[in-house]
Amino acid sequence: MRLVIIGGVAGGASAAARARRLSEDAEIVLVERGPDVSFANCGLPYYLGGVIAERSKLLVTTPERLRARFRIDVRTLSSAEAIDRKTKSVSIRNLADGSVYDQPYDKLILAPGAAPIRPPLPGIDLEGIFTLRNLHDVDRIHTRLHAGLKHAVVVGAGFIGLELVENLVHRGISTTLVELADQVLPPLDPEMTTPIVAALRASGVEILTREAATGFRKTGGGLLVDLRSGRELSAQLIVLGVGVRPENELAVAAGLEVGPRGGIRVNASLATSDPDIYAVGDAIETTDAVLGGPAQVPLAGPANRQGRIAADNVFGRQSKYRGAQGTAILGVFGRTAAMTGASAKTLARQQRPFRAIYVHPAHHAGYYPGAEQMTLKLLFEPDSGRILGAQAVGGAGVDKRIDVLATAIQARMTVFDLEEAELAYAPQYGSAKDPINMAGFVAAGLLRGDHPQIDVPALLALAAAERPLLLDVRTPKEFAAGHIAGAVNIPIDDLRLRTAELSTEKPIVTYCEVGQRGYIATRILRQRGFDAVNLSGGYQTYQLFEPVVRQS
Amino acid sequence: MRLVIIGGVAGGASAAARARRLSEDAEIVLVERGPDVSFANCGLPYYLGGVIAERSKLLVTTPERLRARFRIDVRTLSSAEAIDRKTKSVSIRNLADGSVYDQPYDKLILAPGAAPIRPPLPGIDLEGIFTLRNLHDVDRIHTRLHAGLKHAVVVGAGFIGLELVENLVHRGISTTLVELADQVLPPLDPEMTTPIVAALRASGVEILTREAATGFRKTGGGLLVDLRSGRELSAQLIVLGVGVRPENELAVAAGLEVGPRGGIRVNASLATSDPDIYAVGDAIETTDAVLGGPAQVPLAGPANRQGRIAADNVFGRQSKYRGAQGTAILGVFGRTAAMTGASAKTLARQQRPFRAIYVHPAHHAGYYPGAEQMTLKLLFEPDSGRILGAQAVGGAGVDKRIDVLATAIQARMTVFDLEEAELAYAPQYGSAKDPINMAGFVAAGLLRGDHPQIDVPALLALAAAERPLLLDVRTPKEFAAGHIAGAVNIPIDDLRLRTAELSTEKPIVTYCEVGQRGYIATRILRQRGFDAVNLSGGYQTYQLFEPVVRQS
Repeated sequence: MRLVIIGGVAGGASAAARARRLSEDAEIVLVERGPDVSFANCGLPYYLGGVIAERSKLLVTTPERLRARFRIDVRTLSSAEAIDRKTKSVSIRNLADGSVYDQPYDKLILAPGAAPIRPPLPGIDLEGIFTLRNLHDVDRIHTRLHAGLKHAVVVGAGFIGLELVENLVHRGISTTLVELADQVLPPLDPEMTTPIVAALRASGVEILTREAATGFRKTGGGLLVDLRSGRELSAQLIVLGVGVRPENELAVAAGLEVGPRGGIRVNASLATSDPDIYAVGDAIETTDAVLGGPAQVPLAGPANRQGRIAADNVFGRQSKYRGAQGTAILGVFGRTAAMTGASAKTLARQQRPFRAIYVHPAHHAGYYPGAEQMTLKLLFEPDSGRILGAQAVGGAGVDKRIDVLATAIQARMTVFDLEEAELAYAPQYGSAKDPINMAGFVAAGLLRGDHPQIDVPALLALAAAERPLLLDVRTPKEFAAGHIAGAVNIPIDDLRLRTAELSTEKPIVTYCEVGQRGYIATRILRQRGFDAVNLSGGYQTYQLFEPVVRQS
Repeated sequence: MRLVIIGGVAGGASAAARARRLSEDAEIVLVERGPDVSFANCGLPYYLGGVIAERSKLLVTTPERLRARFRIDVRTLSSAEAIDRKTKSVSIRNLADGSVYDQPYDKLILAPGAAPIRPPLPGIDLEGIFTLRNLHDVDRIHTRLHAGLKHAVVVGAGFIGLELVENLVHRGISTTLVELADQVLPPLDPEMTTPIVAALRASGVEILTREAATGFRKTGGGLLVDLRSGRELSAQLIVLGVGVRPENELAVAAGLEVGPRGGIRVNASLATSDPDIYAVGDAIETTDAVLGGPAQVPLAGPANRQGRIAADNVFGRQSKYRGAQGTAILGVFGRTAAMTGASAKTLARQQRPFRAIYVHPAHHAGYYPGAEQMTLKLLFEPDSGRILGAQAVGGAGVDKRIDVLATAIQARMTVFDLEEAELAYAPQYGSAKDPINMAGFVAAGLLRGDHPQIDVPALLALAAAERPLLLDVRTPKEFAAGHIAGAVNIPIDDLRLRTAELSTEKPIVTYCEVGQRGYIATRILRQRGFDAVNLSGGYQTYQLFEPVVRQS
C-alpha cells in the first residue's frame, strides 16, 4: 500500500499516525506545504497574547518525530500541484528548490484544510493586514506586536476574531472589532451573546456590528480602515477573521465533487467521488449529525477523528464518520460561551419545529463560596422532546454542561432524560439539582403542559391588542430595581391572597428573575382558572434580549 | 387529597414542593423531627472548616418559606411515632410539649433518611464523640472546635470522613483517619485512591487502614481511642463516619417490606408494599440502574428526584424512577476523585464480565498553561462495549469527564460512541482529542483487537514461569528514573531497528509512561510476529497499584 496524504496538520497528521499503526508495511508519504506539521492552531491567538510564552509549545509534533516514531515519509515545504487520477499520481513541487516530481499513490487522503478568506478590497495587500492560519502568520504578527503598537482592528467577530481581540487587549493594545452581522459570535443565537458583548465592552473593546471594512489605506502612523458607514479607523495592525473557505482547488481541478459552499464531498467512509481518494478536515463537506443535510464544520476535534477514520477505510476497515454536531467553545475576558448542536437560528432557517427554554442556575451549590451563574438555553423537538441544541454563557462550569449536552445529543436523548441525569454532586462541583436537571425540568414541564411558557421574542411580537397582563412576582425591591414596562407586581408569596386583583378574562404572563417563582405563579393561577403562562428564563432572559431588540 | 410527608430534608422537601405545584387543593403536611427543613447536608463539613462562613447559608429553605410559598403545613420538632395503615393515620409526637396526636392521611410519603451508624463500643457515649447528620450535630462539633482543639480522630474514610478530615486540617487540627477497610474511599477501586492517600499524607493526615476503633476512654486531656491493633490515639474530638443505615423503624413497625440491608422496598413508582405509602431518599432500597438488582444509594441528587417522582405518583402521574447509578464526587486537598456506575470490585463480586482501561490525559491542551493530569479508569462489557462504570482522580476537569460518562452510562452508550464524542475544545477547556475520546480509543482498540492490553493485577498475578518479557519503551532517562523490576529498555523510536534483540518465543508486555508509546510498540511488534500486549495505562497505572500490592 502506497498512501499519500496531502496536508500535515490535524486531520493529515492523525491519518498518518493511524495508518502506520494499522500497517507497518505501508509506504506513507505526508506532503505539507508549510515548514511544520501538526501545530496547535487553536493556540495561535494565545501565543500572540503572551499567554503561551514559548513558540515551541505550539508544535504538537515535528517532522522528525513523525519520521522516527511512525516511519512517515514527511515532506514539508512541498506543495501538491495536481492529481492525475488516471495514473494515480500527485504532482508535487518542492518549494525549497522549485523542482516538480510525480508521486504515485494507491490511496490518497486530502487534508488541505481551509484558508482564511481575504476579501479583494482596495489596499488588502498593504503591510500590516494579516490573517491567522499558521505559524508563519503568527510569527509575522508577533514581530509587529513588539513595534510599539497602539491600535488594532480585528475584522470578524467569530471565535478566532474574539480570541484575537482578547489577546491583543491582553498585550495592552486598544482594539476595535468590526463585524458584518448584527451580532458577535454569529453561530450563537444573538441574545446569548449579550454577556460576551458586555465583557468585551468592559475590557475597553469597541464593537462595531452591522459594519464592514470597504478598503484599507496607508498613512504616516500606520493604516486606515474605511468602513461602510463612512467612518475610518486608524490602526497599526489589522487582522481579518472573516471566515474560511475549503482549500478545494486540487480536488476541483481533479474533477472531484464539491458542495455548493466549496467543501469536498465525501461519503460516510470519507471517500470522495473517487473511491481511491479520501478527504478529511476543514476542506470537506460533511453531514450535520443532528439535523442531517450537509455541513461544513472547520473544527480540530472532528478533523482529528476524520483522519483516523479515513486511514481505517484506506486499510479496508468499515469505520464511518457520523457527522459533526458543531460543538464549540470560546473563552474571552473571563466569560465562557459554548454551544452544541443546532441553534434557534438554524432551526428557524430550516423550518424545523422546536421549542427553547432558558435557565440561569449557579455552576455549583449556592451555599458554597464562589458559585457563578450561567445562562443555559436548551433547544428541543416539541413532540418527542429530543434535544436538538444547547448554548451556554457564563463562567465556570459552562464547558461541563455543554459537554454533557453534547453527549446527550449524540445519544439522541430527550429533555425527559435530562430530568433523570445523575451527575456528580458535592458543593464545589455541582448541585443536587444540577443545571442539566433544571433545564430538563423546565423543558419537560413545558412539553407535559405543566409549565406553559412564552419566549421573550414571542412576547415582544404580540400586537398591542393581544398583549397579556405582565405579572412580576418578584419582591417589591426587585421590581423597583427594574422591570418590564407595563408589568404589575404581586410577590409570589402574596399571590394566593391577591388573585382577586387579577382578571380571568385576559391572558397573564408571569415572570420573576430566572423563571422559578414565575413557574410557581403559573401553577397557582392556572389551577384557579387563569390563563397564565410563564416567561421562559424570567427577567434575566428578557435582559439578554434587550440589546437585540434595541438593535432591530 | 390529604398528603402527609415524614421528613423534611432533601426528598421530603422536594416532594412537598412538587405536590403543591401539582395541586393547589391538596392538604400537605410535612412532619420533621428536627427544627430545620431542607438544609445543605453536603455543606456541613465545609461549615466546620470555615469554608462556608455563615451558618445561615446551610438553610436551603425554611419552614416559613415552605409555608408562605407552597402553603405546606410544616410541623418541625415533630416525630412520627407509628403508622396505622388500617385507619390511614400517623401518630405524631410534638417534641416541644410531648403531646401526641393522630394525623390522618390519604397518601403518605416516607422520607426519614438514614442515620449515621454509632457502633455500640465501650465509651461510645462519652462527650466529644460525634456523628454528622444535621445542623444540631454541626453546632455541637462547631462549639468544640473553638476550645483549643489540637488532635482529632475521624473514624471512617468514606466521602464524608474525608471531607471532615480536610476541614479539620483546614482548621489547623492534627487529624488521624481510621478505616476498617484496606483502602480509603471504599466505593472506589483501591488503586484509584492512591493519589488521594498521597494528598492526605502530604497534608499531614495520619491514615490507618485495616484498623478499627474498639473503644473510647476519657482522660485528663480529652479522649483516648483504643484501636484493634492495640495502639491508642489521643484526641479532643472524635467524629464517626462509618456509614449510615436507613431509618426504617417506622416502616418496619408498620409491616412494610424492607430489603436485607434495611432499605424500605419500593417499586419503580416509589410505592412501598402499601400502595398508599411511598418512600424516597436515603431510607429506601432502589435499583442499580447499571447492573440491575437492589441498591442503597444515600445521595442527595437521587433523593431530590425521588421526592418529585413520588409526588407525581401520589397525584396519579405515571412517573418512574429509573434507579441510581451511584455518581459521586469528592474534593480533598486540591484533588478530585469521582465515580459513576459500577466499580471493578462490584463487577467482580457480581461475577459480571468486564474489562478496564486506564488513561492519564491532561485536562486541557498541554500547550496551554495550567494543564493538570488526571487518571481515568473506564469499565465496560467485553462483548458489546457498553460502558459499565468510570472513575477518575486528578485536579481540574475530573468532574466534567465523570459527568459526561454518567450521561453516557445513562444513555447506554458504548466505548465506540466515546471515540466519536464531539466535545467542546478550546485550549483552556479541553483537547482536540478529549480525555473522553482517548478513553474511547483505548477501550475500543482493546475490543477490536488492535490494542491488546493486560491489566497490572493480571500481570502481577502471573506465575514466575509465565512471566513475559517486560519491555519498557520509554527514554533511557525515564527508565533510569524508575521502572518495573526486570524490564528491559528499548526506546520506542529505536524499536523497529532493534527487534532482533527480542525473541518471538516469549510473550512481551510493553509499557511506557501512560500507555501511548506502549501501544505503538505493540503495533510494531505484533505486525512482526511477536506476541506483544500493552500494559494498560503504563508505568503511571503500575505506580497506582504499587501501594495496593505492598499492602496485600
